[in-house]
Amino acid sequence: MTLIALLDHAAVLVFALTGALVASRAQLDIIGFSFLAILTAVGGGTVRDVLLDRNPVFWMADPTYLGVAVIAALLVFFTAHLIESRYTAILWLDAAALAFAVAAGARIAETLGQSAAIVIVMGAVTGCLGGLMRDVVANEVPLVLKQGELYVTCAVAGASVIALAPMLGVGPAMTVTLSAAITFALRAGSIAFGWRLPVYKSRPPRR
Amino acid sequence: MTLIALLDHAAVLVFALTGALVASRAQLDIIGFSFLAILTAVGGGTVRDVLLDRNPVFWMADPTYLGVAVIAALLVFFTAHLIESRYTAILWLDAAALAFAVAAGARIAETLGQSAAIVIVMGAVTGCLGGLMRDVVANEVPLVLKQGELYVTCAVAGASVIALAPMLGVGPAMTVTLSAAITFALRAGSIAFGWRLPVYKSRPPRR
Amino acid sequence: MTLIALLDHAAVLVFALTGALVASRAQLDIIGFSFLAILTAVGGGTVRDVLLDRNPVFWMADPTYLGVAVIAALLVFFTAHLIESRYTAILWLDAAALAFAVAAGARIAETLGQSAAIVIVMGAVTGCLGGLMRDVVANEVPLVLKQGELYVTCAVAGASVIALAPMLGVGPAMTVTLSAAITFALRAGSIAFGWRLPVYKSRPPRR
Repeated sequence: MTLIALLDHAAVLVFALTGALVASRAQLDIIGFSFLAILTAVGGGTVRDVLLDRNPVFWMADPTYLGVAVIAALLVFFTAHLIESRYTAILWLDAAALAFAVAAGARIAETLGQSAAIVIVMGAVTGCLGGLMRDVVANEVPLVLKQGELYVTCAVAGASVIALAPMLGVGPAMTVTLSAAITFALRAGSIAFGWRLPVYKSRPPRR
Repeated sequence: MTLIALLDHAAVLVFALTGALVASRAQLDIIGFSFLAILTAVGGGTVRDVLLDRNPVFWMADPTYLGVAVIAALLVFFTAHLIESRYTAILWLDAAALAFAVAAGARIAETLGQSAAIVIVMGAVTGCLGGLMRDVVANEVPLVLKQGELYVTCAVAGASVIALAPMLGVGPAMTVTLSAAITFALRAGSIAFGWRLPVYKSRPPRR
Repeated sequence: MTLIALLDHAAVLVFALTGALVASRAQLDIIGFSFLAILTAVGGGTVRDVLLDRNPVFWMADPTYLGVAVIAALLVFFTAHLIESRYTAILWLDAAALAFAVAAGARIAETLGQSAAIVIVMGAVTGCLGGLMRDVVANEVPLVLKQGELYVTCAVAGASVIALAPMLGVGPAMTVTLSAAITFALRAGSIAFGWRLPVYKSRPPRR
């Protein structure tokens, strides 16, 4: 398995777990779990592949991705009641999936010879859009826009590592590892320690 | 008209009626009716065609689809007040449109030589995404995720008929008829008799 | 710069301002501002380019579009507190962006030799979908479906000018100017003077 396929599989697996956990909060059946798991898992990468004109898109070229997402949905369906706080599980798994997906998306764009700007955007698209679809469809507040948390920022930082790698002369395995580590560390810092950028504050307050 | 064009036209017409009925609940004007009708009618098939790289997408290749959707919107604009329960009408028309669209989407994927997994996914994509777009845009609870009802399940079952047809040696007309009948029957059973799969129940309850 | 690039840049700039203003209402950080600005600015044109199979999509062919959107986000981040009513600013900027985007989208379809129906749809897609994505993601009531206002109607009217232009023998610069003027005038009339089409009224009332 190539480095990119490994990252894409990891992102699909962990994003699928978050989709299924959101389904458990909405009390769906097993097919509803699988639907939200697949949408979350492949949503971002599908937009990336359509934009990059990669044909067929990754999960049509290799349907084992769909199998991985369904297995994740089954796993959550039968074990979610064992989890103390499903919201906390969603937050942390989503952070891990974000890290894998950003690295996968940016690396794919880079191997296609895209410019640094497009490499960063493709990292953000792959990382952010699957979770955004999950949250919009399930009518949850999108994690990506949660006030005062770092999210797209983490994706942009992680993808920038890959955009800059050709200048640094580091090998691909090291680059994607560093990229995923930075994405995850920033997101973890934001969840656990409240790391944030200054947010816009209107005067007078909104409501 | 080919079998596929017939199914696609039927799905477009009936999905457009549901989009227009949702527009009537939101008290839009005639162009708003047409907008929601077109979005619902061609949304799923458009994603299908983009994923399958069918170019141009079906309603660009044959703009009569748009005309059909606009006629459906006009029809509903002038007659919706005659309907006793618009929500019930939406539910049942959506079930019929789902049946047509699933058969169309799965059959298209099958004629392109896709694997069984992709045939099933394309049936579900074609059947489920137009209605999902309608509900997300109009801020209704998506039918596709309504707790305790069969929806994606019906699509998967109907599409599976087409995925399995090559092994059964049945002709295409019979296969799509059987597929649409199974999708509709399962959905009708869920609406009318409460057929369902076991749903995930958390302990303790969610709220 | 070609006429189309000029229109696309104007639409991107002004739509990005509206996306950033919506971000300011949600009190996001600067990267959140940029994310919503970019989504709003390129959302409609991206769907248009995917449907028309223009490859690469416009902002991948020329990443200065992304730079324009980020500059708009920065501008709003540091000056939005000076604006008396951000909602009013969003309404009027959105009307201007709609006018530019409709003309750009319709003109692109027309130069590709598409039929009048597709020219009109591409104008509406380019004009309406970016703002729709902004509103759905930020969980605002979509402007495009706001009860009793003209919105898609303005887009259809403006795009029709371009669809009809070949018959009128008017030059492209005049045509797109007229198209944008008509879109904006109708939308402005709806915002300022309450111009509207008859809306669907159910009897008995909805709730």
